[in-house]
Amino acid sequence: METLWPDRYALRMGRMRSSIIRELLKLTERPEVISFAGGLPAPEVFPIQEFRAAADRVLREHGPEALQYSTTEGYRPLREMIARHTARYGIVVKPENILITSGSQQALDLLGRVFLNPGDCIVVERPTYLGALQAWNAYQAEYIGVPMDDEGLRTDYLEEALRAGPKFIYALPNFQNPTGVTLSLARRRRLVELAAEAGVPLIEDDPYGQLRYEGEHLPPLVVLEGKLHGSDDQCCYSGNVIYLSTFSKTLAPGLRLGWVIAPTEVINRLIQAKQGADLHTSTFVQMVAFEVARGGFLDRHVREIRAVYRARRDAMLAALEECFPEGVRWTHPQGGLFLWATLPAGLDAQELLKVALEREKVAFIPGGPFFPSEPEQNTMRLNFSYVPPERIAEGIARLGRVLNGTRA
Amino acid sequence: METLWPDRYALRMGRMRSSIIRELLKLTERPEVISFAGGLPAPEVFPIQEFRAAADRVLREHGPEALQYSTTEGYRPLREMIARHTARYGIVVKPENILITSGSQQALDLLGRVFLNPGDCIVVERPTYLGALQAWNAYQAEYIGVPMDDEGLRTDYLEEALRAGPKFIYALPNFQNPTGVTLSLARRRRLVELAAEAGVPLIEDDPYGQLRYEGEHLPPLVVLEGKLHGSDDQCCYSGNVIYLSTFSKTLAPGLRLGWVIAPTEVINRLIQAKQGADLHTSTFVQMVAFEVARGGFLDRHVREIRAVYRARRDAMLAALEECFPEGVRWTHPQGGLFLWATLPAGLDAQELLKVALEREKVAFIPGGPFFPSEPEQNTMRLNFSYVPPERIAEGIARLGRVLNGTRA
Repeated sequence: METLWPDRYALRMGRMRSSIIRELLKLTERPEVISFAGGLPAPEVFPIQEFRAAADRVLREHGPEALQYSTTEGYRPLREMIARHTARYGIVVKPENILITSGSQQALDLLGRVFLNPGDCIVVERPTYLGALQAWNAYQAEYIGVPMDDEGLRTDYLEEALRAGPKFIYALPNFQNPTGVTLSLARRRRLVELAAEAGVPLIEDDPYGQLRYEGEHLPPLVVLEGKLHGSDDQCCYSGNVIYLSTFSKTLAPGLRLGWVIAPTEVINRLIQAKQGADLHTSTFVQMVAFEVARGGFLDRHVREIRAVYRARRDAMLAALEECFPEGVRWTHPQGGLFLWATLPAGLDAQELLKVALEREKVAFIPGGPFFPSEPEQNTMRLNFSYVPPERIAEGIARLGRVLNGTRA
Repeated sequence: METLWPDRYALRMGRMRSSIIRELLKLTERPEVISFAGGLPAPEVFPIQEFRAAADRVLREHGPEALQYSTTEGYRPLREMIARHTARYGIVVKPENILITSGSQQALDLLGRVFLNPGDCIVVERPTYLGALQAWNAYQAEYIGVPMDDEGLRTDYLEEALRAGPKFIYALPNFQNPTGVTLSLARRRRLVELAAEAGVPLIEDDPYGQLRYEGEHLPPLVVLEGKLHGSDDQCCYSGNVIYLSTFSKTLAPGLRLGWVIAPTEVINRLIQAKQGADLHTSTFVQMVAFEVARGGFLDRHVREIRAVYRARRDAMLAALEECFPEGVRWTHPQGGLFLWATLPAGLDAQELLKVALEREKVAFIPGGPFFPSEPEQNTMRLNFSYVPPERIAEGIARLGRVLNGTRA
């Protein structure tokens, strides 16, 4: 029986592009493929024993609470812990300024829901995180892309972009997805200044901030903005920056656990929106994550992750140096999960991917989809967190052979 | 420092009503209050030991998979199990027709996202589930309320309602929230017929279907609709009904785990929407729920829940008979978690709630918010699943004293 659905109903999502990340993730499931495509953490670093102990303790000591409905804003001890952790980085907020979300992706979605009307525009880095574009496409957003260089977002282009009257600016200052680039301190200051002057909120997405492998920690935008206004530490947070982070890269992405820090009024609207979206994030997951993270474990664990990922980044940089031909450039990320390669003009990374998968069983993500418009097709994102160092060397060698046009 | 947010930005949610359920749930946290307000399952029936064993086994045997990102559509063994379970009720679908959601609430939200443009109208029962109104208010939906009686939705009013060209019909045929009323077989048939004739999709929300305490199981709309069209069991489902259910009432609501059954094209759009909304539902939670439910446990457990809730329903009906004054009417639900009381015209249940909380420490939900428009303020929803039988008797006695205007 033929279904009549697509003809009968004007489903709203027709104009959304099909998900490229999702289709590509399917390719990476074949065991013979070495995949630099996903953004997956290394499963070797998941603290499985700690999760076993935590799940058991939560159910043993707080079973009825862990399995029951709970408040939309999130498990209070977890929000208090997040407030204590972020305070060490200068982000001084109360638990009332923190909303637990079902992964950072939900925070992006909820922000779209409370801010965006169809046709509203958003200033984004160019390229930017694909998941943010997917979240905001559903609200029919328009984008103004600001170019980047090795110091991140080109703030000298920002003033012009702000003249279009965007609803907010979206930035990933640390080890950006997809480029791996970090926004310099001078540019951070300028970005915060310009946003405040224009009265445009800044969404600071910081999933990788704790995963720095070299160089000095740079203050988050939310901290620089607080200094600008001399905000009172005793007060609830009331600045111009909305800060997002997640446990996906430090504990485990399979939890789907992130958070938003925002002024009280914005948090209250986000809570309303979240209640309509999924009532609340799993009580059990929140309590287990709290139980795993508390007592200093998260800090110790993040140090271990850093060591593992630093070695993988180094392995990839060394392999690129050795195997990639002249004329290909790539970024040197100080942290995070990704680097970004630019091929000679005229090369199409999507075409290259087909060849790479077919001939050499190696995968990456073509850079095009990360651009809000006018995609630069000669770019690619390479993930270095998921594949062990020796496989990284082998995978980059394979990719080098594809680029050099030589078969294995 | 005064925050400038509400003045500076036209946040989109301003027109949403503040959440009455949420505010009321706060009242129920005081231990001296006997609360019939929430829709909480009894924590005494949570299978905590089974969850402990399942969480341990999942982490021990599938730790890296349970903690990693997974596909948006959901954990395949769980979807296969749901397909097997629903087949016993005549709902014959493939796992490809099933999307796992972060609770049923997310299914309502995603349906709004793929179906609704601002101003689109929806046919709903009057009164209807408040969470659905909250989900769809975010998409600026309009509602056409169809009256109910003891046999459920008055299908004789439906033809007129359908003339307005609604985007879909939303119905809760079993032990409806908030009224506890069950749609009769004749009306089910008529509803399905009229929807098919008008070419309007039917959303069948069935969170309580398994919790029947008396009478015969009635076929779901999705099954009646399949018979209407003589659909082929070997095919993917392609009918006119979208069916929602959840593990919140049979396993535990703190998981946030529900599912949608829909034609393939609709499921594909919902998957796209969910990817932008939260990527996927917690892998860990899906695997733990599968591990708890499989091997026949869920069936045995549901039998236990039925016995517990039947006793509580009976306790409430007996207490109402004994303590409520002349002129108050209430429904006699055959299952589910709620019944619905109608006070003499002119009485305002919201006013009554204030008195009830203050004088007698007893809570319920005033019926007004469950109406999409023209609220009947002399109504109230009473939950009988959460409070043990002896406390039910005491709570209804207290409420009877309030209604009789006598102090304790």
